[in-house]
Amino acid sequence: MERSIEPGFGSTGTTEQPLYISVIGGGMCSAEEYAMAEETGRLIGESGAVLVCGGMSGVMEAAARGAKETGGTTLGILPGHDRSLGNPYLDLVVTTGVGHARNLAVVSTGDAVIAIGGAYGTLSEIGLAAKVGRPVVILKGWRVQNEEGTAGIWYASDPREAFSLVREALRPGPTP
Amino acid sequence: MERSIEPGFGSTGTTEQPLYISVIGGGMCSAEEYAMAEETGRLIGESGAVLVCGGMSGVMEAAARGAKETGGTTLGILPGHDRSLGNPYLDLVVTTGVGHARNLAVVSTGDAVIAIGGAYGTLSEIGLAAKVGRPVVILKGWRVQNEEGTAGIWYASDPREAFSLVREALRPGPTP
Amino acid sequence: MERSIEPGFGSTGTTEQPLYISVIGGGMCSAEEYAMAEETGRLIGESGAVLVCGGMSGVMEAAARGAKETGGTTLGILPGHDRSLGNPYLDLVVTTGVGHARNLAVVSTGDAVIAIGGAYGTLSEIGLAAKVGRPVVILKGWRVQNEEGTAGIWYASDPREAFSLVREALRPGPTP
Amino acid sequence: MERSIEPGFGSTGTTEQPLYISVIGGGMCSAEEYAMAEETGRLIGESGAVLVCGGMSGVMEAAARGAKETGGTTLGILPGHDRSLGNPYLDLVVTTGVGHARNLAVVSTGDAVIAIGGAYGTLSEIGLAAKVGRPVVILKGWRVQNEEGTAGIWYASDPREAFSLVREALRPGPTP
Repeated sequence: MERSIEPGFGSTGTTEQPLYISVIGGGMCSAEEYAMAEETGRLIGESGAVLVCGGMSGVMEAAARGAKETGGTTLGILPGHDRSLGNPYLDLVVTTGVGHARNLAVVSTGDAVIAIGGAYGTLSEIGLAAKVGRPVVILKGWRVQNEEGTAGIWYASDPREAFSLVREALRPGPTP
Repeated sequence: MERSIEPGFGSTGTTEQPLYISVIGGGMCSAEEYAMAEETGRLIGESGAVLVCGGMSGVMEAAARGAKETGGTTLGILPGHDRSLGNPYLDLVVTTGVGHARNLAVVSTGDAVIAIGGAYGTLSEIGLAAKVGRPVVILKGWRVQNEEGTAGIWYASDPREAFSLVREALRPGPTP
Repeated sequence: MERSIEPGFGSTGTTEQPLYISVIGGGMCSAEEYAMAEETGRLIGESGAVLVCGGMSGVMEAAARGAKETGGTTLGILPGHDRSLGNPYLDLVVTTGVGHARNLAVVSTGDAVIAIGGAYGTLSEIGLAAKVGRPVVILKGWRVQNEEGTAGIWYASDPREAFSLVREALRPGPTP
Repeated sequence: MERSIEPGFGSTGTTEQPLYISVIGGGMCSAEEYAMAEETGRLIGESGAVLVCGGMSGVMEAAARGAKETGGTTLGILPGHDRSLGNPYLDLVVTTGVGHARNLAVVSTGDAVIAIGGAYGTLSEIGLAAKVGRPVVILKGWRVQNEEGTAGIWYASDPREAFSLVREALRPGPTP
């Protein structure tokens, strides 16, 4: 059985599954955020991880674009039923039809989540990600505080640090 | 046609629909939070508004209990398929079957949302509520910040202030 | 504030929870289906069971209307975020925000389901209801066949028979 | 890093998006159904279309396996949060976390749907698919009837006929 997909990608039972990393953020974003998301996508793509996003414009598009620039694999998860609304940098597009509840699928599908800017949709994704045990690294945008602490959420000041925190958080053993 | 439900409740086309207010927070909570949630429920029940919650224990139970103490109406929206998991202070129980995506239904069903403590599920609900345009008053627990500001989110220091902020936020015209 | 909701309704820990029965069918329907749904709603309302529906027009409206004519309690579960789109015969309205995935909540919330006419949305609800173990009685409309049989689905020729089949299906012990 | 994903796959703005075809059916199935699903998957994979499925065992596994045998691309959409529950023939796995509501995502993500056997979950998918306008070809299992007809649903007696009906249904112009 020939696999046309690169070694390590896909599932053969003998090769390792790739990591999945979700990048979340606004459908509209600043030039700075777009650049950050694109660089984050590049780091993810280079690493061989699958880039997951909400499939739309802004940060989601930039991250997918960056991942494709490095030959990475990209997956977009849309709220509605129309695949053509996905941005042009997605290898595969899922149309969930569940509206904002697709935010749950976006973060659940990643092994970890990187947040870049964004408004309330992104805030909901940070909460949902942490709720289902996905480590979250916030690169820019939200700051959240709770008396009980915010275990599982980290802050980074640039894409490289964000990616490095994600790798550490996913390493077996004690988290950073 | 006789209505056995009190005037103003239910829908006849001639009477006004009641307000719905969602109270969100942890399924496990401190005694202080339980008391706060119960008092918040009482204020909602006394006002004639419908108390909406996630239907489970902790803050959800306390709020429903408070509302029932004043003869209010309570509605619980559960993540799974088993109605019997609802707390004993619910007039009606919806089983959504969509897991944490039921958080969207909990906050969407309210005209406004009051948050009391809680962890990441509650954070996701704050985000989802604000995303779909429901005013959120945080009584205790989360503090969220964003460079773009957090329009639609307020903080209160006691249940009375929380309820009063909700009333103001829902009044036609400029918001507080 | 006096509750005129009937004794035994609501939850006190001491009284029995009412049954919930979901009526499903088209948002557009024939006069015959409307009359059938209204009569079905009346039977449900008279019995003290809660009438659950998808909250919109057609069969959903007729069933809620019938239940209210007998002083019953009605609950509508909408796909979107706008409560005002509910029909005028609903005591309580849930806005799920999950689009057609709200069909799962509609059928899960009932202890049993009665289907009257309807098109593909109704077919999906018949499938989802049976999947989560809710007995389904089809009054009119769909006929479904499978080599493995269709355990848990019954057919009735009028509302009285449908209601009677539901009662039997929910009686403890062997099903009809 | 070289992409070995076939030309035309992925999104560059210049190449055409592939078709997506969802195969639905039971998580447990007969040997005959497994063979049918595998052959269906092969036809889909050979054609260059993306094979979409619910990601689990039985018909879902067989279809994904068939598609991979021909070097096709496979996408599994799971109900829960645990990617490792996906079958070993999936290139990419989405964890939706919305339980049976993931059935909506499975059928919406396809341009068309082929059903092979299955029980009530599959029936719900047939309904949801037709509801959101996806042509459905039933190879084996369910037969559904409605007085209003069942436009958009076809029956086939073998995988080749099923695939051919899907191609026709998706061809611009009048449907078969």
